[in-house]
Amino acid sequence: MIEVVALDGDDTLWHSEQLFVDTQASFRELVAPYVDVDDAHLDALLLEVERRNLPTFGYGVKAFTLSLIETAIEVTKGEIPAARLQAILDLGKVLLDHPVQLLDGVPEAVDELTDRYRVMVITKGDLLHQETKVVRSGLEEVLWRVEIVSEKDEATYRRILDRHGIDPASFVMVGNSVRSDVLPVIAVGGRAVHIPYHVTWDLEHVDPHPEHAFPVLPSIRELPTCIRDLDGATPGA
Amino acid sequence: MIEVVALDGDDTLWHSEQLFVDTQASFRELVAPYVDVDDAHLDALLLEVERRNLPTFGYGVKAFTLSLIETAIEVTKGEIPAARLQAILDLGKVLLDHPVQLLDGVPEAVDELTDRYRVMVITKGDLLHQETKVVRSGLEEVLWRVEIVSEKDEATYRRILDRHGIDPASFVMVGNSVRSDVLPVIAVGGRAVHIPYHVTWDLEHVDPHPEHAFPVLPSIRELPTCIRDLDGATPGA
Repeated sequence: MIEVVALDGDDTLWHSEQLFVDTQASFRELVAPYVDVDDAHLDALLLEVERRNLPTFGYGVKAFTLSLIETAIEVTKGEIPAARLQAILDLGKVLLDHPVQLLDGVPEAVDELTDRYRVMVITKGDLLHQETKVVRSGLEEVLWRVEIVSEKDEATYRRILDRHGIDPASFVMVGNSVRSDVLPVIAVGGRAVHIPYHVTWDLEHVDPHPEHAFPVLPSIRELPTCIRDLDGATPGA
Repeated sequence: MIEVVALDGDDTLWHSEQLFVDTQASFRELVAPYVDVDDAHLDALLLEVERRNLPTFGYGVKAFTLSLIETAIEVTKGEIPAARLQAILDLGKVLLDHPVQLLDGVPEAVDELTDRYRVMVITKGDLLHQETKVVRSGLEEVLWRVEIVSEKDEATYRRILDRHGIDPASFVMVGNSVRSDVLPVIAVGGRAVHIPYHVTWDLEHVDPHPEHAFPVLPSIRELPTCIRDLDGATPGA
């Protein structure tokens, strides 16, 4: 019996990674005049900087912006002018202030789910930024709970289930990241639904996982029916 | 009847603002060779940059670090070399990785409080950083709940009380900021205890507030007795 449906935010309810991809393209243009490396090399260096800063900075746009600045300084051996670094910092501000663009079908799917289940959002990233996105999404009113977390691992999901008194068997998590939204939830006894987004951040990639079976949907439009199937109810009932 | 005692983190349980003050001194030294302004002017400009970035960045060390970089670029009219900006960025990393130093008397006070009350931490700032500080504080085990929030206003306190099913009349908040830990709590029907720290961030300053009466303690050592007095129990009982 499913009681709680938890939805990821970035790239599940609203567009996010595409904005980072676009920002990274602007970043490459700002750095290009001061360095002789190709795009792939620059992207690889940025990923390396993000990875090494992750334990200190965590996830989110502010961490990303600081890593962009650090990468620009490192790859240009300090030759990049300060004004360019301010332009990079401003890219981060644009990301933080960006309007929320819901994925197609989100309002209808959430609306249908809230008729039957308690619906919550579990998302990671900058605290204020994620809160702001929930408000801008227009979904806040119908959500039972919003949990903004620093990491989506088994310990996090256990803490959330415990804090809200949710039986893992009655819990299903829905998101675009197998690493963050699916595998740890299955590991703590819940169920999970994967809705891939058209781009995935490299640090969210996981190897294939043939040992676990979970529904994979082409879009959130199929979610209400999928959840009712999981719930054992007659589809369409 | 008091049931829940909530404690602020920064400058109530562990030292924080002094680390920012020290970092700001290092920042001034890094910028000094490229600009002809006195310390007071530079501090005022930084505060102005922090204030204007607050709605976008929120609180915490990553926001502070981005504002330090922006201030350095602005005050030097872009003349500061990138390597100096990396050194400023590294000041932020040192702050994020800094060991937690508890204020005198904290373990004993928390230990005594947990005998009688549910004790929680309500703190604002970077999500991952605050979580890390709670873990490093060694207090996590004895805390009933930890709430990391993006702003400490009336809406936040209402949400926390509601989420945990706490009657405001049974709730007392303890912290060093009258603006964040005292006034909004009184406004939602709770009680509050002020324990000043020896320095206060300018953005936490409030004007005098003669219309509200609340206990002001010289140190957290006096807190258990103060709470029992508030609770109407015989001190020492």
